[in-house]
Amino acid sequence: MRLMRPLITAAAVAFALPALSQTDPLPSWNDGDSKAAIIAFVDGVTTEGGDDFVAVADRVAVFDNDGTLWAEKPAYVQLYFAIDRVKALAPQHPDWTTTEPFASILKGDIDKAFAGGHKAIAEVIGATHSGMTTEEFNSTVLDWITTAKNPETGRPVLDMVYQPMLELLAYLRANGFQTFVVSGGGIDFMRAFTEQAYGIPNPQIVGSSGKLKFDIVDGKPELLKEPDVDFIDDGPGKPVGIQMHIGKQPIAAFGNSDGDLQMLQYTCITDGPRFCAFVHHTDGTREWAYDKDSNVGQLDEGLSAASTYGWTLFDMAKDWKVVFPGTQ
Amino acid sequence: MRLMRPLITAAAVAFALPALSQTDPLPSWNDGDSKAAIIAFVDGVTTEGGDDFVAVADRVAVFDNDGTLWAEKPAYVQLYFAIDRVKALAPQHPDWTTTEPFASILKGDIDKAFAGGHKAIAEVIGATHSGMTTEEFNSTVLDWITTAKNPETGRPVLDMVYQPMLELLAYLRANGFQTFVVSGGGIDFMRAFTEQAYGIPNPQIVGSSGKLKFDIVDGKPELLKEPDVDFIDDGPGKPVGIQMHIGKQPIAAFGNSDGDLQMLQYTCITDGPRFCAFVHHTDGTREWAYDKDSNVGQLDEGLSAASTYGWTLFDMAKDWKVVFPGTQ
Repeated sequence: MRLMRPLITAAAVAFALPALSQTDPLPSWNDGDSKAAIIAFVDGVTTEGGDDFVAVADRVAVFDNDGTLWAEKPAYVQLYFAIDRVKALAPQHPDWTTTEPFASILKGDIDKAFAGGHKAIAEVIGATHSGMTTEEFNSTVLDWITTAKNPETGRPVLDMVYQPMLELLAYLRANGFQTFVVSGGGIDFMRAFTEQAYGIPNPQIVGSSGKLKFDIVDGKPELLKEPDVDFIDDGPGKPVGIQMHIGKQPIAAFGNSDGDLQMLQYTCITDGPRFCAFVHHTDGTREWAYDKDSNVGQLDEGLSAASTYGWTLFDMAKDWKVVFPGTQ
Repeated sequence: MRLMRPLITAAAVAFALPALSQTDPLPSWNDGDSKAAIIAFVDGVTTEGGDDFVAVADRVAVFDNDGTLWAEKPAYVQLYFAIDRVKALAPQHPDWTTTEPFASILKGDIDKAFAGGHKAIAEVIGATHSGMTTEEFNSTVLDWITTAKNPETGRPVLDMVYQPMLELLAYLRANGFQTFVVSGGGIDFMRAFTEQAYGIPNPQIVGSSGKLKFDIVDGKPELLKEPDVDFIDDGPGKPVGIQMHIGKQPIAAFGNSDGDLQMLQYTCITDGPRFCAFVHHTDGTREWAYDKDSNVGQLDEGLSAASTYGWTLFDMAKDWKVVFPGTQ
């Protein structure tokens, strides 16, 4: 009933069923188990007097970013930003032509550059995300991201957000939820675009971060970004980030990889009405199909946990009418 | 005009001046420079089309806690909590009877216990604020704080919040501000009472913190509080905490000690409409009179900065009709 398009009859109005007069809040979702589960959960926690009612103050929903709200293939957008920054900053770092991983990046051999795994990534992030104020960094990201394109699809990265997830965010907010991003991505990197892209303001962005240093330079206060890592908001770090920034357990959590497993455990292994889901990348035609064996966004343990705990899998191929805004 | 009590005449209504029909939003403030400055600032940033208009999303106000929103004398409330926890936990720590600073606390010699300064305090906080889950800690604080009394006045500590500051918080929120606590106090400690005491929800509390560890114990997810310090939200740490948790520069900041100086610098040494103020403890009769020479809440450099930058001093004796709720 509640999914029907407006087709109001005098009788329906007389029965005073407001749901009937609403347009579909999730138009890019195919009718099916996932959509029905979302709507049943929201109806439950918003029905005053019902068993599952949750006060507005406790309606906290957390979302991973990469692979959950926007595409993370062939690699994280933030990594492409870092690579472009290495190229832009290379003239000021002559030693980079002979020092890995910078040398391989400058030669265009990205695979070789990041063969060193996390250590190489941390080095590149450290070198490109520090040595400037938070304000300067914000403008640099903003300049870059408004023109950056996905290297495989050629589409602007900001157009590769998931339309169904934008609708889910808006639907939850319309029902009194506060929506937070809780991502392994850099907090300062994300804040340059998350308000515009997702309608989520800066205080509701939780992410990884480097150390900051306050100083007054030429009479002007500034926060300098330092190269040392301060906090990694991934895996078991996600519940920690949630406690630090939000200070209450969410009642809904959405991720797509094993890095989100602990966030979903923290949210959903408890009493009371809860909703946990993984975006399952099953659509090799409109997006990318990957899970257990992927080097980016691996979903393996998470799939087992979803099965054990009855979490929802958003099957991208089956559940989503549209993947990216303005596409079919 | 705007400070008048409701005394509406037909003529006033005919002129359609809505301010006249409002009751005084700051009834515990004496008419004077401080109250006038607050109201002029709020009028400025909320007047659409005016030079000083600030969009709702950017109306961020930050408040120190100890000495700014509630009393901090004779010592921080959190320290009394820690002392009571040492006494409660002593049977499980027989070594404390011979180890400082615990031995002196157990003998009731608080001065001697904390003669070691920050190191001794950190040791006591570490020992009493760790080894339990965030949930357990929250209940412990809540149990304690609802009965805790100030050792000098005998009043419940929760009754020693400042009535004029509660009105200021409410007035700012009524004008579209988000109000944040940014305090050197422990973030988990504060969150046990800040929503009830100040109407500020957990995500808007910024404070000092220890390390947290996520684990699943007996099938139940939990966050364990560890003894190591993670972040000190004081002095130059306050602008850092603001960037981490809020991600934008506030437009108003309220403190009372030199530990708030950098927060006020970060907020107010910049272009655009800004409001910075120190609560100046000038009232030895109704509260405590202290500034430059105090061991708790020293305000020395801050007084000079206030004079240099034209920040407001809330003169407790002169500006406040009432200090604590329900008193004169």
